[in-house]
Amino acid sequence: MRRLHHLPLSPFSRKVRLVLAEKKIEVELIEEKPWEKRMEFLLLNPAAQVPVLQIDGLTLSDSVAICEYLDEVYPDIALMPRTPEARAEVRRLVHWFDDKFHREVTENLLYERVTKKIKKTGYPDGSRIREGTNAIKYHLDYLDWLLDKRKWLAGDEMTLADFAAAAHLSCLDYIDDVDWTRSEHVKDWYARIKSRPAFRGILADALPGMRPPPHYADLDF
Amino acid sequence: MRRLHHLPLSPFSRKVRLVLAEKKIEVELIEEKPWEKRMEFLLLNPAAQVPVLQIDGLTLSDSVAICEYLDEVYPDIALMPRTPEARAEVRRLVHWFDDKFHREVTENLLYERVTKKIKKTGYPDGSRIREGTNAIKYHLDYLDWLLDKRKWLAGDEMTLADFAAAAHLSCLDYIDDVDWTRSEHVKDWYARIKSRPAFRGILADALPGMRPPPHYADLDF
Repeated sequence: MRRLHHLPLSPFSRKVRLVLAEKKIEVELIEEKPWEKRMEFLLLNPAAQVPVLQIDGLTLSDSVAICEYLDEVYPDIALMPRTPEARAEVRRLVHWFDDKFHREVTENLLYERVTKKIKKTGYPDGSRIREGTNAIKYHLDYLDWLLDKRKWLAGDEMTLADFAAAAHLSCLDYIDDVDWTRSEHVKDWYARIKSRPAFRGILADALPGMRPPPHYADLDF
Repeated sequence: MRRLHHLPLSPFSRKVRLVLAEKKIEVELIEEKPWEKRMEFLLLNPAAQVPVLQIDGLTLSDSVAICEYLDEVYPDIALMPRTPEARAEVRRLVHWFDDKFHREVTENLLYERVTKKIKKTGYPDGSRIREGTNAIKYHLDYLDWLLDKRKWLAGDEMTLADFAAAAHLSCLDYIDDVDWTRSEHVKDWYARIKSRPAFRGILADALPGMRPPPHYADLDF
């Protein structure tokens, strides 16, 4: 049985869900609140983080390790390019989103507005929200700059870099924190990736007491 | 001309230096203080982070992207195992150190004690030092648990996971923040990796006004 332990608004979980769906690998989704540190979950991943994927008799954790594994073992729909230099560019951009964007934007907006509410650990910190709101502008401008020259983030083909970026942006879009009017290039790219069948599961996510804005699941926004 | 833009006590730079030295790839080292955000450096890496490697006519950034590139293009001394599941384990552990250990230990100890001094941005925060001092114990215990069953961190062969861990620990050892008496397994593993010729450059690092403890460069400690 293939199982993905995840959280609906975890960008790292969403990246793996997108890769699984794009490769048409069906999994059972199991929601896990990693901060509860359940012993059964810690035995799967001592880092106490989602996602954790059980597949092929293995228990895999860390979203980058999982995505690279899936692309190596299920290569029919390839999400990594063929040349080492193109792969380096994909990995640079995946890390850009999972590290820099996560630290400067996702943590400041999503974790302040949503995770604190779910964990009941207080109210959003206005200064962090302002920091995140400011930082996302620069990141959207960087995406605009890339997409002015490229069809997809890392080049001519859709790769893990697009899924890493879309995973973060889709979480922020759920709480209406993305200004899609800032760049036509970015809006067009996101409409393309959001229209893929792989995106359906994510667009159907519904958190109790938190509705996404109407454009969230609208493929034409 | 091959050039590595780095900082001596950046664990991410050290990881790349170790991989380059292990593969006997000579590079010119250029010290860069990324927080100064020099325009020439931002043009190499808009993320404003070290390391940046100029090699084969390319400019590569992000230490994971660089290390995977080097292992793909210079495979004579392989630092990634052959099977997808073993590679997933290496990538999980590399990320453990570059993300979890970095956040819980390196940032709290090294950045408080050293980076603040270099950047002249204040004095070490005692509560963060205590957090880091506490957290490193759990990480050393996790390494002990792994090395009780394995010769190297990810299995029978030395891999990028060992270099990622050693890069962080060597920076902390420079400021004498590693209690090597905590685990014989960890001490033995570190002595083995520290004795490799690839480690020489790192053991010769000397920061002005900050001397490492006598055991830092002692191969038998």
